[in-house]
Amino acid sequence: MIEADIHEIDIVKAEKTKIHDVDFDNINFGRIFTDHMFLCDFIDGKWQQPQIMPYQAMSIDPSARVFHYGQAVFEGMKAYKDNNGEVFLFRPEDNHSRINKSSARMAIPEFPKEYFMNGLLTLLNLDKEWVKPGVGNSLYIRPFAIATDSAIAAAPSSNYRFMIICSPAKAYYTGKVRVLIAEKYSRSADGGVGFAKAAGNYGAQFYPTSLAQAKGFQQIIWTDANSHEYLEEAGTMNIFFRINDKLITAPTSDRILDGITRKSVIQLAEDNNIDMEVRRIKVEEIKEAARNGSLKEIFGTGTAAVISPVSAFEHAGTTYEIPDLDDSYAAMFKKQLLNIQHNLSEDKHGWRYPVK
Amino acid sequence: MIEADIHEIDIVKAEKTKIHDVDFDNINFGRIFTDHMFLCDFIDGKWQQPQIMPYQAMSIDPSARVFHYGQAVFEGMKAYKDNNGEVFLFRPEDNHSRINKSSARMAIPEFPKEYFMNGLLTLLNLDKEWVKPGVGNSLYIRPFAIATDSAIAAAPSSNYRFMIICSPAKAYYTGKVRVLIAEKYSRSADGGVGFAKAAGNYGAQFYPTSLAQAKGFQQIIWTDANSHEYLEEAGTMNIFFRINDKLITAPTSDRILDGITRKSVIQLAEDNNIDMEVRRIKVEEIKEAARNGSLKEIFGTGTAAVISPVSAFEHAGTTYEIPDLDDSYAAMFKKQLLNIQHNLSEDKHGWRYPVK
Repeated sequence: MIEADIHEIDIVKAEKTKIHDVDFDNINFGRIFTDHMFLCDFIDGKWQQPQIMPYQAMSIDPSARVFHYGQAVFEGMKAYKDNNGEVFLFRPEDNHSRINKSSARMAIPEFPKEYFMNGLLTLLNLDKEWVKPGVGNSLYIRPFAIATDSAIAAAPSSNYRFMIICSPAKAYYTGKVRVLIAEKYSRSADGGVGFAKAAGNYGAQFYPTSLAQAKGFQQIIWTDANSHEYLEEAGTMNIFFRINDKLITAPTSDRILDGITRKSVIQLAEDNNIDMEVRRIKVEEIKEAARNGSLKEIFGTGTAAVISPVSAFEHAGTTYEIPDLDDSYAAMFKKQLLNIQHNLSEDKHGWRYPVK
Repeated sequence: MIEADIHEIDIVKAEKTKIHDVDFDNINFGRIFTDHMFLCDFIDGKWQQPQIMPYQAMSIDPSARVFHYGQAVFEGMKAYKDNNGEVFLFRPEDNHSRINKSSARMAIPEFPKEYFMNGLLTLLNLDKEWVKPGVGNSLYIRPFAIATDSAIAAAPSSNYRFMIICSPAKAYYTGKVRVLIAEKYSRSADGGVGFAKAAGNYGAQFYPTSLAQAKGFQQIIWTDANSHEYLEEAGTMNIFFRINDKLITAPTSDRILDGITRKSVIQLAEDNNIDMEVRRIKVEEIKEAARNGSLKEIFGTGTAAVISPVSAFEHAGTTYEIPDLDDSYAAMFKKQLLNIQHNLSEDKHGWRYPVK
């Protein structure tokens, strides 16, 4: 087997595009995929020839370890198109370094940066018609790695597949969300895999989230598993709290994802001279602030959600409504982020990454 | 779509058997599969026609939620053949009820008992030549369910596939194992999915286990994530401690699997008039017992491992060797269990389940 040459991705182009079958005004998140996909297999101890091929189902053995032991990690990214038709990514090297951190925790071999960036850019060049211009439109990009070894012993796989698939997206959450603060269920443990974008972290949230949804809440804000006294993250979003004009978010830890939108918002807070504290936050502090009127905003941050304002939360059977604000930080950060992402404003931190 | 009739599994038989290619004296656990597999899809809100077909790779979309969100559960069971060529399962209804508990926690629809038992028995009848007689030989059976919906929104799948695959097995662990008691990493949180056989619970252990293996330990005994002071389970095994002639194991909880071998051993302890305590166990208690010589045995229990004696453990940098015993509980329970499983002794609790 020859070692892969990163400048030579094997490319098989789709015979015809599916793009004309897509109603871009009515897109369900994550159900439609572009014409091509990227894949690279890890066999015999090394990553093999990277390939781009028409998006298609793949043949996989029922004993593949990903099905049995959840040895799988992923990333979420977006590409944006400006008014001149140029396509941009947002801090993509951070996604690469994070998927490798996730992989290390899940005993998956790290994926070389050159393979990742070259695969991503080549794939986006082929499918750039799928990136629609206009704020609110984007192409959601899903890099992921799965254990493909055909063996059900409970041990790390020998073989893996790294893939990138892309799906056109509108805003992920529309409107404000109502959230439930966790009192019984937990997302992750100290010394666990909560900081990683490990597949099993997400499936484990579906049942408690379905219970919350049945009560009229779209999301759960997870608390620490030990005491349920501290606010952590929302599973698909990091969470920010504004008390008067101060913004607070929990520190990253081995339970909390190091969100790229989260750290961008922390930087934007500094740029906007907003008092920003990264520290542990008690549920009681937020409840007291809601009661005395100093809790001005709660919002979530994440690639899919961008900035998602929270209109109410429930804890211990009491619902706390958060009144609308004219000048919300959430709206300001969302506008500033989208403007940077869509090349409508200066990019003083070098977050935009042109797809050439 | 017609509702499936459980008495009418669609069966496509393999044209020829692969059994003659298999060296049954030299089997690597979990790499060889029998001639057939069982599958049943959940579509449009119900389980469809169950099928048995030749064991084969399957076509699955790269966006299938199992790859992204670890929405997957499994079971481990074994079939045994006695000296008359009759095949037996061991408490299979308990596996069925447990996979449904796992499924509920992972937001996967429960699989009907009739489908499960009928699929299992029909499959084993077709592949019964793969169950080799003799204590130590067995056919490992892996029922599992995966989320198959082609959509990457972080929400429960609409479609699922339930499968049963089978793999001939010798003893899983051979010889005694050395174990490391966890001080930093954790397996599960209160309010999490540790009690379920959820795929992601296993992949999350691979990296810490690889660190333990590099230090010469085959397994980790996990402790509670809050304090790391209490002994829980070993990830693929429940753990029993013998202090003088008393046997102790941790109670099941939302962090600890309700092991079928575990509860069988608890029953056998009663049958053998052994003083059995099901209670929380401090690491310090075991260390003190090792120091003063009252710690006689540690052993793991699990379907794959059966009974796996521990020869040494390490905690906080100190290794504690456990001397060999002539009359060990581990050896006695293993012999009693294997005799029941292989129809060599009376089965007073009705654990054997004949495959007719």
